Amino acid sequence: MKFENGNARELQIAYIGGGSRGWAWGFMMDLADDSQMGGVVRLYDIDRKAAENNAVIGGKISAHPDAKAKWRYEVAGSLQDALTGADFVVISILPGTFDEMRSDVHAPEEYGFYQAVGDTVGPGGFIRAMRCLPMLVEIAEAIRDYSPKAWVINYTNPMTLCLRAMYDIFPEIRAFGCCHEVFGTQKLLAAMLEEKLGVKEIPRQDIKINVLGINHFTWISSASWQNMDLFPLYSEFTGKYHETGFAIGEDNWMNSAFHSANKIKMDLFRRFGQIAAAGDRHLAEFMPASWYLRDKETVASWKFGLTTVDWRVQDLKDRLARSAALISGEEAIEIKPSGEEGHLLIKALLGLGDIISNVNLPNKGQVSNLPVDVVVETNALFRRGEVLPVAAGAMPGNTLALTSRHVYNQENTLRAALGCDYSLALTTFLNDPLLEGITPADGEKLFYKMLTATRNYLPGGWKL
Amino acid sequence: MKFENGNARELQIAYIGGGSRGWAWGFMMDLADDSQMGGVVRLYDIDRKAAENNAVIGGKISAHPDAKAKWRYEVAGSLQDALTGADFVVISILPGTFDEMRSDVHAPEEYGFYQAVGDTVGPGGFIRAMRCLPMLVEIAEAIRDYSPKAWVINYTNPMTLCLRAMYDIFPEIRAFGCCHEVFGTQKLLAAMLEEKLGVKEIPRQDIKINVLGINHFTWISSASWQNMDLFPLYSEFTGKYHETGFAIGEDNWMNSAFHSANKIKMDLFRRFGQIAAAGDRHLAEFMPASWYLRDKETVASWKFGLTTVDWRVQDLKDRLARSAALISGEEAIEIKPSGEEGHLLIKALLGLGDIISNVNLPNKGQVSNLPVDVVVETNALFRRGEVLPVAAGAMPGNTLALTSRHVYNQENTLRAALGCDYSLALTTFLNDPLLEGITPADGEKLFYKMLTATRNYLPGGWKL
Amino acid sequence: MKFENGNARELQIAYIGGGSRGWAWGFMMDLADDSQMGGVVRLYDIDRKAAENNAVIGGKISAHPDAKAKWRYEVAGSLQDALTGADFVVISILPGTFDEMRSDVHAPEEYGFYQAVGDTVGPGGFIRAMRCLPMLVEIAEAIRDYSPKAWVINYTNPMTLCLRAMYDIFPEIRAFGCCHEVFGTQKLLAAMLEEKLGVKEIPRQDIKINVLGINHFTWISSASWQNMDLFPLYSEFTGKYHETGFAIGEDNWMNSAFHSANKIKMDLFRRFGQIAAAGDRHLAEFMPASWYLRDKETVASWKFGLTTVDWRVQDLKDRLARSAALISGEEAIEIKPSGEEGHLLIKALLGLGDIISNVNLPNKGQVSNLPVDVVVETNALFRRGEVLPVAAGAMPGNTLALTSRHVYNQENTLRAALGCDYSLALTTFLNDPLLEGITPADGEKLFYKMLTATRNYLPGGWKL
Amino acid sequence: MKFENGNARELQIAYIGGGSRGWAWGFMMDLADDSQMGGVVRLYDIDRKAAENNAVIGGKISAHPDAKAKWRYEVAGSLQDALTGADFVVISILPGTFDEMRSDVHAPEEYGFYQAVGDTVGPGGFIRAMRCLPMLVEIAEAIRDYSPKAWVINYTNPMTLCLRAMYDIFPEIRAFGCCHEVFGTQKLLAAMLEEKLGVKEIPRQDIKINVLGINHFTWISSASWQNMDLFPLYSEFTGKYHETGFAIGEDNWMNSAFHSANKIKMDLFRRFGQIAAAGDRHLAEFMPASWYLRDKETVASWKFGLTTVDWRVQDLKDRLARSAALISGEEAIEIKPSGEEGHLLIKALLGLGDIISNVNLPNKGQVSNLPVDVVVETNALFRRGEVLPVAAGAMPGNTLALTSRHVYNQENTLRAALGCDYSLALTTFLNDPLLEGITPADGEKLFYKMLTATRNYLPGGWKL
Repeated sequence: MKFENGNARELQIAYIGGGSRGWAWGFMMDLADDSQMGGVVRLYDIDRKAAENNAVIGGKISAHPDAKAKWRYEVAGSLQDALTGADFVVISILPGTFDEMRSDVHAPEEYGFYQAVGDTVGPGGFIRAMRCLPMLVEIAEAIRDYSPKAWVINYTNPMTLCLRAMYDIFPEIRAFGCCHEVFGTQKLLAAMLEEKLGVKEIPRQDIKINVLGINHFTWISSASWQNMDLFPLYSEFTGKYHETGFAIGEDNWMNSAFHSANKIKMDLFRRFGQIAAAGDRHLAEFMPASWYLRDKETVASWKFGLTTVDWRVQDLKDRLARSAALISGEEAIEIKPSGEEGHLLIKALLGLGDIISNVNLPNKGQVSNLPVDVVVETNALFRRGEVLPVAAGAMPGNTLALTSRHVYNQENTLRAALGCDYSLALTTFLNDPLLEGITPADGEKLFYKMLTATRNYLPGGWKL
Repeated sequence: MKFENGNARELQIAYIGGGSRGWAWGFMMDLADDSQMGGVVRLYDIDRKAAENNAVIGGKISAHPDAKAKWRYEVAGSLQDALTGADFVVISILPGTFDEMRSDVHAPEEYGFYQAVGDTVGPGGFIRAMRCLPMLVEIAEAIRDYSPKAWVINYTNPMTLCLRAMYDIFPEIRAFGCCHEVFGTQKLLAAMLEEKLGVKEIPRQDIKINVLGINHFTWISSASWQNMDLFPLYSEFTGKYHETGFAIGEDNWMNSAFHSANKIKMDLFRRFGQIAAAGDRHLAEFMPASWYLRDKETVASWKFGLTTVDWRVQDLKDRLARSAALISGEEAIEIKPSGEEGHLLIKALLGLGDIISNVNLPNKGQVSNLPVDVVVETNALFRRGEVLPVAAGAMPGNTLALTSRHVYNQENTLRAALGCDYSLALTTFLNDPLLEGITPADGEKLFYKMLTATRNYLPGGWKL
Repeated sequence: MKFENGNARELQIAYIGGGSRGWAWGFMMDLADDSQMGGVVRLYDIDRKAAENNAVIGGKISAHPDAKAKWRYEVAGSLQDALTGADFVVISILPGTFDEMRSDVHAPEEYGFYQAVGDTVGPGGFIRAMRCLPMLVEIAEAIRDYSPKAWVINYTNPMTLCLRAMYDIFPEIRAFGCCHEVFGTQKLLAAMLEEKLGVKEIPRQDIKINVLGINHFTWISSASWQNMDLFPLYSEFTGKYHETGFAIGEDNWMNSAFHSANKIKMDLFRRFGQIAAAGDRHLAEFMPASWYLRDKETVASWKFGLTTVDWRVQDLKDRLARSAALISGEEAIEIKPSGEEGHLLIKALLGLGDIISNVNLPNKGQVSNLPVDVVVETNALFRRGEVLPVAAGAMPGNTLALTSRHVYNQENTLRAALGCDYSLALTTFLNDPLLEGITPADGEKLFYKMLTATRNYLPGGWKL
Repeated sequence: MKFENGNARELQIAYIGGGSRGWAWGFMMDLADDSQMGGVVRLYDIDRKAAENNAVIGGKISAHPDAKAKWRYEVAGSLQDALTGADFVVISILPGTFDEMRSDVHAPEEYGFYQAVGDTVGPGGFIRAMRCLPMLVEIAEAIRDYSPKAWVINYTNPMTLCLRAMYDIFPEIRAFGCCHEVFGTQKLLAAMLEEKLGVKEIPRQDIKINVLGINHFTWISSASWQNMDLFPLYSEFTGKYHETGFAIGEDNWMNSAFHSANKIKMDLFRRFGQIAAAGDRHLAEFMPASWYLRDKETVASWKFGLTTVDWRVQDLKDRLARSAALISGEEAIEIKPSGEEGHLLIKALLGLGDIISNVNLPNKGQVSNLPVDVVVETNALFRRGEVLPVAAGAMPGNTLALTSRHVYNQENTLRAALGCDYSLALTTFLNDPLLEGITPADGEKLFYKMLTATRNYLPGGWKL
C-alpha cells in the first residue's frame, strides 16, 4: 500500500467468504464508487467456484465506465494466500448450509418455539455458534500467522460471538464488527421528523445517537437532530403509532421477510424508556418468548415477519440466477452505492476522512457497567490507524438486566463451543429467554437433536 | 460495655422486631447459655404487647438456674430509645401482616405460578421488598442517627435487599446478614459422610466449604472434611440418590412445610457442577418456573413442600399459645442452644473467639465477578472489631449466569422500591424467572393486583 | 433559552470570576464573533468593581459594528443571582491574592526548590489547592442549589482538583474543564510538518491526536495528519532538535514567562516514547526536581522560563491599564477570536456543530488503567446535550507510573483540603516529586510556613 | 501421596535451591518435628555439591532419635527430575553470586546512595530482578510442564516480582510467597503488651492483625489481642519510644546486620497512622532516600544496620563451616523448630489443620484499591486444597500513594526484565524513591554500570 496525491493505491484486501452473493457485490460497488482507493481484492471461499464467479463480477464492476477506481479481483486458494500482505480483511461467511440452518430456525417449532431469524441468540443462534466459532478461531489463527497487523472487518453472525472468539484466540487482532441494524432506527427517526416537521430526506447520519448494548440488542440512550432532543418527539410518536405500527419505505412488512412495522421497537421504548435500536425481528429474539414470539398469532399481531429457511432457499436461487446473469452480461452492471459503511471505515483508517459510527468491539469501558472484554456495540471514532470507542455510559435499569443476561449466556456459549463442553452447552441453551417455559427434559431433547443436526460442522471434540 | 476478667459486661443490644416468637426466643437462649457476656437487651416492636411478652419470657430465661449469664430485658418505646447506646443491633422484623403475605405467596397461583416461600425473589419476594425496604431505610436512618458505630445483624428477608437498602442509605453502617440455610447443606454433607464412612455426628462446622452467591441462592465451590475432598463423594452420592432423594433428620419432607428430600440440590449439582447450598424450597424459587415449580405435581415429584400462609397462620397460633404458656409458667423454661450463630458472631466481634462463617455483606471483591457493592454471601472472618470477607473467587459458568440475573433484578427492585417507580417495578417484576411464560399483559394485571394488596404498607410516593 | 431559525437566543451564561482581565475578554470576543448565539452573561466576582468594569467592556464589544451577535452583560450580586436560570456556567477565578501566590511560588526557593508556575502540583500547587478547593465546593453547592442542570466549564487551576472537588460535593454536576496546553503541542506538530514538508499553516485542529493523562501532564499516544503517522516524523525531529530546542512563533523563550524551546517535551519523548502534550513549564513541575528544576542553571539549560510573581504583578498592572483604556475608549475595541474553544463547546452542546476536543472529566474508563472517578484529560465528543469521552486506552509503562503518582497525591490533597487534615496534608506535600530530597523535618517547616502564609483563605477547620 | 490414619505419607517435595545453608536446614528441622507428614524431599541446586551436602544433613536430621517423622532426602539432577510427581515445590534460590550482589548493594554508594539490604526495591533490588526473574520464568515453565498441580512456596527475593513473573508465564500456577517480616511486628506488639500489662510470652499468633500491602512494605490496619484494640496502646507506645527506639530480644541492633530499634516503624506509624509491618531495614528502602538512608549518620540516628556484602561473605563462610561440621558429625544435630510456617501451610493444604497467615498472592480484590493481578501481601485462609485471601480492604491515604508507586515500578521492572527493554528498564530504575535526587545523566551511568556488572546472569536479549 502506498499513498499518491493523498490517495491510497495498491491496497490489499482479503475477503473471507468471497463467494458471497450480496454483501460482496455491495462492497465491490462501494469500492468502485470511490476514487480515493485502489488495489487488489483477494476472494477466498471454501466454495471456490463462487469466489471465481465473484472475481468475474468484480472485474466487470471495476471495468465499468462509471467506476471511479480500479480494483483487481483475484481468487485465493487458501487463507494463507488471501491474508499474506493484506492491509484489510473482510469476513462474511455462512457457517454450514441451509440444512443446518433449517434445523437451527425450525426445529424448536416442534416444541412451540418460534424464531424470527435464528442466527444470533435463541436456540438457533446458539447452535449456529457451536459450528461457527471454531471457523472463526481458524480464521483468527490464520490472521495471527499471516497478517497480524491487518484491520479485520467482520460481518458474520452471531456477530458478538464471532468477534469474541477471534479476540479470545488472538488478543492483539485489530478486528471490529459492522452491522446496519442501527441505521434502520436512524431512518425511522428521520421519518418521524419528516412526519412531524415536514423536513424531507434528512440523512440518517445527521440523526445523532448514543448507542450501547450488544449487537442486535442495542439501545439508544440519547438522540438528537440539530438542536432538538428527539426523545420527547419519539415519546409522542410511539404514543400515536404503537398500536398501528409505522413502517417506512415502500416495502410492506406483510410481504417481506425483513420488514416490520416497528411495533416492538415502540413497545420496548414505552416499557424501558430507551430506544431499542435493532430491527424488530432481532429485538424479538432477545426478549422472553412470551413477549413477541409466543405463537404465530402473536407474531402477526406485532406485525413483523419470520424469515423462514424456505424463503432463504428461494432467495439464494434468485441470487444465483442474478450472479449468472451478471457474468453472462444478461444483466448489465450498474454502479450504485450499497448504503453500507465498510469502505468508509477503511478510508477513515487510512486517514481519508474521520467517521463516528456504531461498531462492535471488546468492552474497554465504553459500556461502563458491562464486564470488561465482552464484545459490545457502541459508537467509535475511526481515524488514521485507530478505532477509539466513544464512552457510551452505563446501561440503565432493565436494559442492563435484559442485556447482561445475554452477555453471560454468550460467554458460556463461547466456552462451550471452544471447549466442546456438553454440560455447559446444555445449561446455557436452556437459559435462553426464547426457550422460557421449556422443561429441562424437553430442552435436552431439543438440544441434542439440534446439535446432532449440525454435527457435520462441529469439531472433533464433541462426543455425540 | 466493659470487660471484666476477659468477659464482656453491660453490653447493650437493641432488638428491632423484639416481639418475634421464634428467633427472639432462640437468641435469648443462646445468650443465657454463654457465660462470657452479659448486659441488657432492649426489645422494640411496633407490636408493643409482643415485645412486653418477650421481655417477660426473657426475664424468665435469664432467671433460670441453668442460665450462665444475666441479661436484663427491657421494652423500648421507640427506635431511638432502643438504639441509643447500643453496641449491637439485631433486626428481625415481619413486614406487614399475613394478609399481605397471603397475596405475596398465593396471588400468582391464579395465573398458574407457585411459590415455595415467597419471601426472597419471585413475585412474592418482589412485592414483599416493596413494603419492606422502606422500613429498613427508616431503621438504617435511625441507626445512623443514634448508634452509628453499632454492629448490626439482620435476619429479615429478603435478606440481600434489606442489607442493600441499609447500605444504600447509610454506607458506613456496620451491618451483616445471617442465614442458616447453608448450615443445612453442611449437615447433608455430614450425613453423607456418615452414610459412606460410618463416622457419626460430625459437627457441621467441621465440614469446610467455600460459599459464594447471594442469600438463598448460594453455591459451594469446594468442600472438605479433614483431608478429604468432598466433591467426588458428593458426585457419587447424588448419582445414587438424585431420584429417590435423601432426607436428613427424623422429619419427613411430606409432613413438613420446611423439609425436603434434597432432590433439587442434587439435580443442580449434576447440572451445574457446584453444590447448591440453600434449602430446596429456596433454590426452587431462583430457577425458571418450568424447572421445579411448574405445577403441584412437579413440586411433589421433587419432594419439597410449599409453605402456605395457612400453615403460617396455624403456626403463629401455636407460637402465641406457647408464648402465653411460657409467661404463665404452664410451659417450663428449658435452656437449650438454638443452633444459630448470632451470639457467636457477637462474641467474635468482642474478641472472645474468632469464627469463620458464611455471611451476607456488600461485595468488595469477595465474589470477583459480581458487581461491586451488591450484597453477596460468602465466608467471612469475624474477629475483634472486624468482619473480613474471605475471597471466594469467581462464580463459574452458568452459576454466574443464573445468579447475576437475580443480582440485576434485585438492584432494580431496590431502585423501584425506594423511588416508588411503577414502570421500573413492573418491568423488574416481569423479569423474574419464576414468572417466565407470563405475557406482559397478564404480568401487569398480576403486578397491579399484588402491589395494591400491599398498599397499606407502601410509602406515599406510590400512585395506585 | 430558545431556538430561532436554528440559532440559540436568550441564552443565560453565569461567569464566576467575571472580573477576570484576560480569559473574560477573550470569551466576550469569541461570543461577539459568532452569529449563532445570543443572550445574557451575568458576571459575578468577589471583586465587584472588576465585574462592573468587565460589564462595560462586554457592552462595548457587543455594541461594536463587527460583532455578529448581541449579548447583554450584567453584574450579579451573588452566586445565587448569577446562577439562577443559567444554561452555562464559566468558572475562572483566582484563589487569593498575589501575596499568597508569592508564597506558593517562591517560598520553596529558600530550600533550593524552584517552580515554573506553581499552580498545579508541587508545593505551590498543593497550597493553592488548600485554599482553592473550599471555594470550588462553595460554587458547586450553589450550582447544585440554583442551576443543577447547567453545563459548567472550569478554567481555574489546579484544574484536576477543582473539578474533582466539584464532583465530590455534587456528583450530578455537568462540569468539564478546558485547557489550551495541548493546543500548543498540536501547533508544534504542525510546525514540524511545515519544516519537513513545506506545508504551511496547517490548522492545529487537523493534527489528530489521542490524548491521555491528567491536566498539564497529558501524553499523546498517537498523532496523525491526513494519512501520515506523525510518530516516526517526531522521532526524527526530536533527534535533530532535542539539544538546541525548537521554539515556535516569534516569541523567544528567553524573553517570555510563557514560552519555551520545547526541549523538555522532546526529552520526555525520547525517554518515554510518548509525546508529552503540555507546555514545558508545566511538564517540568510533574517530574522529580532533579530532572529540569534542579537549580536556575538547569532551568536555563532546558530553555524554559520561570513565571515569577513579580512578572505577574507587572502583567496585572498592564492589564488593569488596558481595562481602563478599553473603558475610557482610549483603546479601541477590535473583535478578534481568542483561539480558545469554550464558545465552540457551548455551541456543540446546543446542537450547533459537533466537536471532538481534549477535556478534563471524571474517569469513567476513558483512561483504562487509572482509577475510576479521578479527573483525567482525554478527547471527548461534544454534541447536543452530551459530552462523551473518547476511550483513550491504557497509559503505557512509565507514563502510567509517573502519572499515577500524581493521581494518588491529588486524591490525598483533596481529602486533606476538604477535611482540614494536617497530617494527611503534610505527608502528601512531602510526597511531591518536586520536593524530592527534602528531609521530613525541613519539609514540615516549609509546609507550615506556606500553609500559614495562605491562612486568610483557609476554612475554619484548620488549627494553625 | 496418600493418607494413613489421618497422616500424610509418601509426600513428594521438590526443593529448588536445595543447596541452601539456612532456609533448607530450618525446613528439614520443621519436617522432622512433625509426626503427621512423611515422604521424600528432592533437592535441586545448580551447585550440585551443595545439594549433596544437604542431602547428607537431611538424612542425619531424619535419622535423629528426636525426629518424629521419616523423610528421605534425594539430590535431583534436573528441574524435571525434582518436579515430576511433586506435591509441593519450595523455591529458595540465590540469583547470581556475591560478586553481583556486591554491585547491587554497594555500587550506588559512589553516588551517595545507601541500601540496607538491596534485594527488593531500590537500585539493588531492581538489578537483582533483572537477573532473577528470567530464572523464575524457567522454573515456572518447568512447573507448568512437570508438576502443574503442585503447590509452590516461594522464599526468593524480590518476593513480589518472583511470584509475579511465575504467574505471568503460567497463570494457573498454585504459587504463594512466604515471608517472616510481619512476624517480627507481631512480636513487637507482644513485647509492648508485656511492657504495659506484664503479660509474658504472648505467642505472636495471638496478636491478630489485618495486613495489607506488598512484601517488605506491608501495613497493619488493625491489631488486637483478645478483646483489646492495640492501636491506642501502640500510639502511646510509639509516643514513648520513638526517639530512643525499642529493640526486642537479646540482640542489639548495633551489633547486628539484621536487628533494629524499630524507630522507623514507629516514625511511620506516627506519620501515616498505620503500623508498618516489615523490619526497619526493609521499610527504609521503600521510602525516599532523604528519609532514612540519606547518609551513614542518618542511618545511625535511626538505629538500624546496613547489611553489607562483606558481612554476607563472612556469614556464608560460617555457614559452610557449619555444614561441614554437621556432615562430619563435629556438630551434633539438634531437632529445633525454625519459627517459620512453611510446613504448617503444607499441612493446612493437606487438610491437617487450618491456618490464617500473611502471604503473597496475586491481587484478586483482597486489597481493593490496588490493581488486579499484581502480587500483594495480606492474610489468607489455608485449608485443604485451597488458599483463600482474606479481604483486607482498601489502603488509606498516603500508604496507598507510597505503595502504589512501587507497584507500578514493579510492573515496569517485570516487563523490562522479561522483554530485555533497556529504555523501560532505565526509566523505571530512575523512578525508584531510593534514587531520588539523582540526575538522569548520573542515573544512567549508574544503571549501565550495575546492569553490566550482572551481565553474566542476564538473558541473551540484552545488548550491552
